[in-house]
Amino acid sequence: MKQYVYSFKEGNKDMKDLLGGKGANLAEMSNIGLPVPQGFTVTTEACNEYYAKGKQIWPELREEIFAKMAELEQETGKTFGGTSNPLLVSVRSGAKFSMPGMMDTVLNLGLNDESVETLSQESGNRRFVLDSYRRFIMMFADVVMEIPKSYFESVFDEIKEAKGVDEDTHLSADDLEEVVVRFKEIYKARDGHDFPQDPKEQLIEAVTAVFRSWDNERARIYRNTYHIPHDLGTAVNVQAMVFGNMGDDCGTGVAFTRDPATGENVMLGEFLMNAQGEDVVAGIRTPLSIEHLNDINPEIYQEFMDLSEKLEHHYRDMQDIEFTIEKGKLYILQTRNGKRTAAAALRVAVELEEADLITKDEAVMRIEPDQLDQVLHPNFDPEALAQATVIAKGLAASPGAASGKVYFTAEAATAASQNGEKVVLVRTETSPEDIEGMINAEGILTARGGRTSHAAVVARGMGKCCVAGAEGIRVNEELKVFRANGREYKEGDEISLDGSTGLVYDGSIATVAPELSGHFGKLMGWADEARKLGIRTNADTPQDARQAIEFGAEGIGLTRTEHMFFDENRIAAVREMITSTSEEARRKALDKVLPFQKDDFVGIFEAMEHRPVTIRLLDPPLHEFLPQHDKEIRDLAATMGLSFEELKATVDSLHEFNPMLGHRGVRLAVSYPEIAEMQTRAIIEAAIQVKQDKGIDVHPEIMIPLVGIPEELTYVEEVVRGTADQLIEEAGIELNYLYGTMIEVPRGALTADKIAKNAEFFSFGTNDLTQMTYGFSRDDAAQIIEDYLKKGIFEYDPFVTIDQEGVGYLVQKAVELGRQTRPDIKLGICGEHGGDPKTIHFCHEVGLNYVSCSPYRVPIARLAAAQAALIEKHGEATHHVK
Amino acid sequence: MKQYVYSFKEGNKDMKDLLGGKGANLAEMSNIGLPVPQGFTVTTEACNEYYAKGKQIWPELREEIFAKMAELEQETGKTFGGTSNPLLVSVRSGAKFSMPGMMDTVLNLGLNDESVETLSQESGNRRFVLDSYRRFIMMFADVVMEIPKSYFESVFDEIKEAKGVDEDTHLSADDLEEVVVRFKEIYKARDGHDFPQDPKEQLIEAVTAVFRSWDNERARIYRNTYHIPHDLGTAVNVQAMVFGNMGDDCGTGVAFTRDPATGENVMLGEFLMNAQGEDVVAGIRTPLSIEHLNDINPEIYQEFMDLSEKLEHHYRDMQDIEFTIEKGKLYILQTRNGKRTAAAALRVAVELEEADLITKDEAVMRIEPDQLDQVLHPNFDPEALAQATVIAKGLAASPGAASGKVYFTAEAATAASQNGEKVVLVRTETSPEDIEGMINAEGILTARGGRTSHAAVVARGMGKCCVAGAEGIRVNEELKVFRANGREYKEGDEISLDGSTGLVYDGSIATVAPELSGHFGKLMGWADEARKLGIRTNADTPQDARQAIEFGAEGIGLTRTEHMFFDENRIAAVREMITSTSEEARRKALDKVLPFQKDDFVGIFEAMEHRPVTIRLLDPPLHEFLPQHDKEIRDLAATMGLSFEELKATVDSLHEFNPMLGHRGVRLAVSYPEIAEMQTRAIIEAAIQVKQDKGIDVHPEIMIPLVGIPEELTYVEEVVRGTADQLIEEAGIELNYLYGTMIEVPRGALTADKIAKNAEFFSFGTNDLTQMTYGFSRDDAAQIIEDYLKKGIFEYDPFVTIDQEGVGYLVQKAVELGRQTRPDIKLGICGEHGGDPKTIHFCHEVGLNYVSCSPYRVPIARLAAAQAALIEKHGEATHHVK
Repeated sequence: MKQYVYSFKEGNKDMKDLLGGKGANLAEMSNIGLPVPQGFTVTTEACNEYYAKGKQIWPELREEIFAKMAELEQETGKTFGGTSNPLLVSVRSGAKFSMPGMMDTVLNLGLNDESVETLSQESGNRRFVLDSYRRFIMMFADVVMEIPKSYFESVFDEIKEAKGVDEDTHLSADDLEEVVVRFKEIYKARDGHDFPQDPKEQLIEAVTAVFRSWDNERARIYRNTYHIPHDLGTAVNVQAMVFGNMGDDCGTGVAFTRDPATGENVMLGEFLMNAQGEDVVAGIRTPLSIEHLNDINPEIYQEFMDLSEKLEHHYRDMQDIEFTIEKGKLYILQTRNGKRTAAAALRVAVELEEADLITKDEAVMRIEPDQLDQVLHPNFDPEALAQATVIAKGLAASPGAASGKVYFTAEAATAASQNGEKVVLVRTETSPEDIEGMINAEGILTARGGRTSHAAVVARGMGKCCVAGAEGIRVNEELKVFRANGREYKEGDEISLDGSTGLVYDGSIATVAPELSGHFGKLMGWADEARKLGIRTNADTPQDARQAIEFGAEGIGLTRTEHMFFDENRIAAVREMITSTSEEARRKALDKVLPFQKDDFVGIFEAMEHRPVTIRLLDPPLHEFLPQHDKEIRDLAATMGLSFEELKATVDSLHEFNPMLGHRGVRLAVSYPEIAEMQTRAIIEAAIQVKQDKGIDVHPEIMIPLVGIPEELTYVEEVVRGTADQLIEEAGIELNYLYGTMIEVPRGALTADKIAKNAEFFSFGTNDLTQMTYGFSRDDAAQIIEDYLKKGIFEYDPFVTIDQEGVGYLVQKAVELGRQTRPDIKLGICGEHGGDPKTIHFCHEVGLNYVSCSPYRVPIARLAAAQAALIEKHGEATHHVK
Repeated sequence: MKQYVYSFKEGNKDMKDLLGGKGANLAEMSNIGLPVPQGFTVTTEACNEYYAKGKQIWPELREEIFAKMAELEQETGKTFGGTSNPLLVSVRSGAKFSMPGMMDTVLNLGLNDESVETLSQESGNRRFVLDSYRRFIMMFADVVMEIPKSYFESVFDEIKEAKGVDEDTHLSADDLEEVVVRFKEIYKARDGHDFPQDPKEQLIEAVTAVFRSWDNERARIYRNTYHIPHDLGTAVNVQAMVFGNMGDDCGTGVAFTRDPATGENVMLGEFLMNAQGEDVVAGIRTPLSIEHLNDINPEIYQEFMDLSEKLEHHYRDMQDIEFTIEKGKLYILQTRNGKRTAAAALRVAVELEEADLITKDEAVMRIEPDQLDQVLHPNFDPEALAQATVIAKGLAASPGAASGKVYFTAEAATAASQNGEKVVLVRTETSPEDIEGMINAEGILTARGGRTSHAAVVARGMGKCCVAGAEGIRVNEELKVFRANGREYKEGDEISLDGSTGLVYDGSIATVAPELSGHFGKLMGWADEARKLGIRTNADTPQDARQAIEFGAEGIGLTRTEHMFFDENRIAAVREMITSTSEEARRKALDKVLPFQKDDFVGIFEAMEHRPVTIRLLDPPLHEFLPQHDKEIRDLAATMGLSFEELKATVDSLHEFNPMLGHRGVRLAVSYPEIAEMQTRAIIEAAIQVKQDKGIDVHPEIMIPLVGIPEELTYVEEVVRGTADQLIEEAGIELNYLYGTMIEVPRGALTADKIAKNAEFFSFGTNDLTQMTYGFSRDDAAQIIEDYLKKGIFEYDPFVTIDQEGVGYLVQKAVELGRQTRPDIKLGICGEHGGDPKTIHFCHEVGLNYVSCSPYRVPIARLAAAQAALIEKHGEATHHVK
């Protein structure tokens, strides 16, 4: 029979699939001799079975749980539900991947009216027992029975007010007696039944609640955001309680073994004496910094520092540790690899390598490529910053620079962001309900909570700028205002956050490019040694090209020639070209466009020097360039010597029902070969000029878009090669250029063997390929895609991460067919997927030569390419940081 | 070394690939002992080699031609270019497939100033020799040197006028002497050189001209229209001349062994005494019916009748024969399977089978499926016809009924047709330049020419209605008018043609369904015995369903539920549904639509009885149903109790940039499951009602469109099966329905194995699949497709005939994957390709269960399916009628 429950002694750190991250680590810590309260784990398989059985705990599982509980009773010498020496437990969720705040926890389970009495006698501390009981009733009611906490909190506040006390700890045992009575009344009024007195019933209900919470909406949103599969299930950890709230020789805290914001090798932690864990992270009381523990209890402090080092060495990574002190004895409740900012991740990885704890390859694997975005993106322009007014100061909880309009609820922030606004979410404190609003915000500002508060932890995970605990501000979420620096900020007012300093500014502030740390350079160097894929960039201007080279680009994979057409100085000539109704008129207009195009290419070639530059000939439907309004048409008609009606008729005739599937790409070159001819001329003349003037050996690659029929490429080749070869011959110099195509139409992929007869390279245009393979227009499908992600029809947005099954199949097919015809064919990708790490892994696996992405994604692509190569070299297991 | 020239004795009728149709037949006839003037054939391979060598006749080919010429000299006892007893030859093109009027011919080649003298002396008929010489000069100038005939014709007419003669034959030898002198002057003036006197030079130039003509634009258009590959090449037949113009004991003619319009077993021919072949077909002199030959020369007549019968038996098909009588001796110049109307094809095939000349299978193979269109399509309504005014009468050259606006040039006809007008092309006579105009016209009317004239032959081939030689009308193509019945008809005026009676009517006339002949029923019965594919129809109404059953449909492959939505009585409810912004409001509107939908299905189920009916749930983008104009919006807003602005905003929000790739198909069912629920309810309630009321065992098949992601189908299945199963259970009857999907998105085909887990059937929606595989919007790409066909990028319009390489690959892949998961999965096609014979062959080959097409294509599909099965049974050779 399958085992569904494991005691901590039976597990180890490699059993995360089965025991979840928390369960595996508790088992591991227990086995290496750390002071961990004993317990057992109900497996993720049990969770899945629970769902398979229609959300039922089945009898055999109950029995197995109670059997392990009996073992735990033996070990602790206490009795669960016993009348003397009662055993209390915590029940916590623990999935394979850490999902902070997403899952629910119940503490002090096992308490009932009877054991409260026993325990009060045995401990001699009735106040602590009642404090635990009131916490348990509220938590159980909230998590298990879904009775909102607010019912309890308002009564609790009422009693505190009546007793004239500010802090929870100032309530007496008698006061708490009253709280417990009132809490049980609320419970009964809401649930219809008395608060359950049978600890076994409490336990089974709690396990069920954890299982149930796996499927709640917040958990689903989190998994969707982080691409965690929905079928992993969660484990449940049942652990003997230790108490941080039993008196002033008790306490609880959390700590990072290194600074999670900077990576600096200093312990960063917070704790509260006489408190339970939730008090620290919930931001109700402001906790003390870990160093103060040395003043209170130097022995415990030293023991904790030693254990922390031991854990970091054991796990060979920065740890995020939860601990409790019960009557002067230290317990470790949990350890896990700590979430960190990108800057910290770089520093930690490099310093761990320098300390010989990990190898270079491991260091490279430690950085989540998408996270690099944080260190690459702009910071505030120092000059603008100097002018700005500071309106508050909080904790530097997650670095970065954010400007945006203030919104006070997740819903409002999300809605505004979907309207294209930049948003800063401002809350007294955040909670798991706010996740979607945080995802959609540029930055998060809270008035309460420390650097390990919900807002701080989640924001760092997302790489979002966050200023937490800015106590100088007062937020009124009801009225949608906050006061700071003597002024009232309303919904829609602009502020700026600096997550690296914790400063909050009035208004919006300009940004500048970041300076990259030595750790960054070192780690990227290791990545470059490891990777096999080439990295190019998509760039339409010399500025973009230079930025990309700075970030390590080895060439241009896509220059969109049409972007140049929109320039104000040129659009008139371009419109004239488009609306010409004869080849002659079109050629006249093209002659005006030629010098502009040539200049553009000269600039790009000079910036890229000897590196290859892939230039795509005109792609979009022509009507995109057209004048839209009658006035514009009238003006253009005048300059073209046409009547308004004539030009209007031409403009109307260019209307298409589905422009994405219309007269664009290679179809333009077939209809109007003179356009392809002009563009080829501009490219080749520019290359010749740069070679002659600067002695740079330019490598242009002329790319024909949207080819789906091999004959299209043959047809256009005559024009392109005819033009190019003649110019090169006339110039009397040597100039090597390539002629190739995009594979972005399904039929292009399916006939790639024939297309490769004429094409010296393929560049996969996975944006269009995705549109056509799915039959989804990007411009129209945003709402549908969101709906599909919510409904679990999509795991990823296929426009962000390549769909390996459909689109990927076509890419792979084209790779095979293309190489069959032309073994040395150059293969790359230039769709926006080219900067997505998962897609880059796929590109490595199918054996492309390079990926091309926007300049700011180049380092991310370098890192992802390295990781793909390292996984091939060492196996998937290396990839242990999620 | 490869042989490039074959004498007739070396060939036979199976060598069409190499010798062309004409060459193979000349060889065959020669070998079975028919009186064929001897000669030789330059092969199609020589033509291809000519192009491969950059349009050059190479020295070895010259030598091989001259060597065969030497053999011919020996056989005929004459000398080519000789000063006594000179050998004259004809040079004709002859490709594998007959291309009437497309290729060029030169007669009397070998004549020069010197041989004219010799021949005059030897024949004693200087007039005939000069007549031949003037014809030769003009033909050579026209065909070989591209000097327009009109230069010569105008001079010829001038001389006829000066001499006061009407007919060519009335010109004397002296007159013709003058003609020859003037013709040679024109030649020199235009070409810059004297008319070539060296027969060998004449021959090589003529062979070159034939090769060249293979690639002229008219030939290309013809091949594109009839899907003849462009790389076959043409052969050149060089044949000793016999003369029909040597005097009154000479003549020439053409004849069909059966009536090519009706198929009746009577000889139908025309001839002219003292004439060369071109005179008969060019319509310059109106020829005599073949029976008159019996009066002029009964012996020759009998000999011709005997030879005709011999040829028909030999070729086991109706023959189209060209003959010449030279000084009382009959020569057969050419025979080929005669082109015929569909009615004639049916009759001839059935009667040849009855005469035991061919088998039933062969009879089935004899009909070109597309041709059936002719006998299926409506004729004029007899009552409307009785009211109509006859304005002229011509020959019933090609049957059918056509009404349309009059146009006088191919260009104007083509342009008007592209504007959506129905066009009748009216010409004095047609020529190969008119092909495109004829393709675009509903019917063709000519004032001159017989039933074997260019217009008649080409129209029959196209299945177009044609009235030829309507001598009562006078056409002025310059002024764009014709006079008939005392009235002037201008461009754009409407007339009607009846190609079965030769009558021309004023105005446009209503049409009715045709009555089908017994031959049709007999042959379709044979086809049904042979075919393996099932044939269904696409039908949205009970009327369509009944028509399709009459034509032999075995079920419905596609009912489009949205067509029902456009009905005037329903559109208001549909619009209300679409613009509802809450599920509740949407359900209220859907409740109004439900009874309409149910009624529709009741009607269709009753019409189809026990046959399966596939119903596709709502497919098109919702905005298609929306009110377009402000007034409509205002009206709808009023009935919905909304403000104009509210409704306008909703309408605007439904706008899509690429609706084809937008919110449609299964995506609607995912967003608004209540729509799928209502439609399922309508289908199942209708099926239950028809079963209960009429005892009909209905077989509904519920089809989900546009599925590209297996999870979409799973998601919607819950709604559909949930609704359907509950209704069936409530009704307490047995009702079997299927749940399936369209495969019309490339990704759907690529994930068909997973989709088949939920789908009990696939129906290939090849319209959308073609759009997405190519990235071509049908609504926008017409112009592009036409351009691609012209430029040879497309061989077929992929929206008419399935693209086997790309779209077909996906279909085949989906068939494999689908059967892998579900071996008994039902597979069909319901795109418009389902009625295209070439596509049907493909569907047979990949092993679909059925094809579905519009009612009028059902017989065509039955026949094409039979032919596909017969080719599989007997091999491709059976398929000898092109």
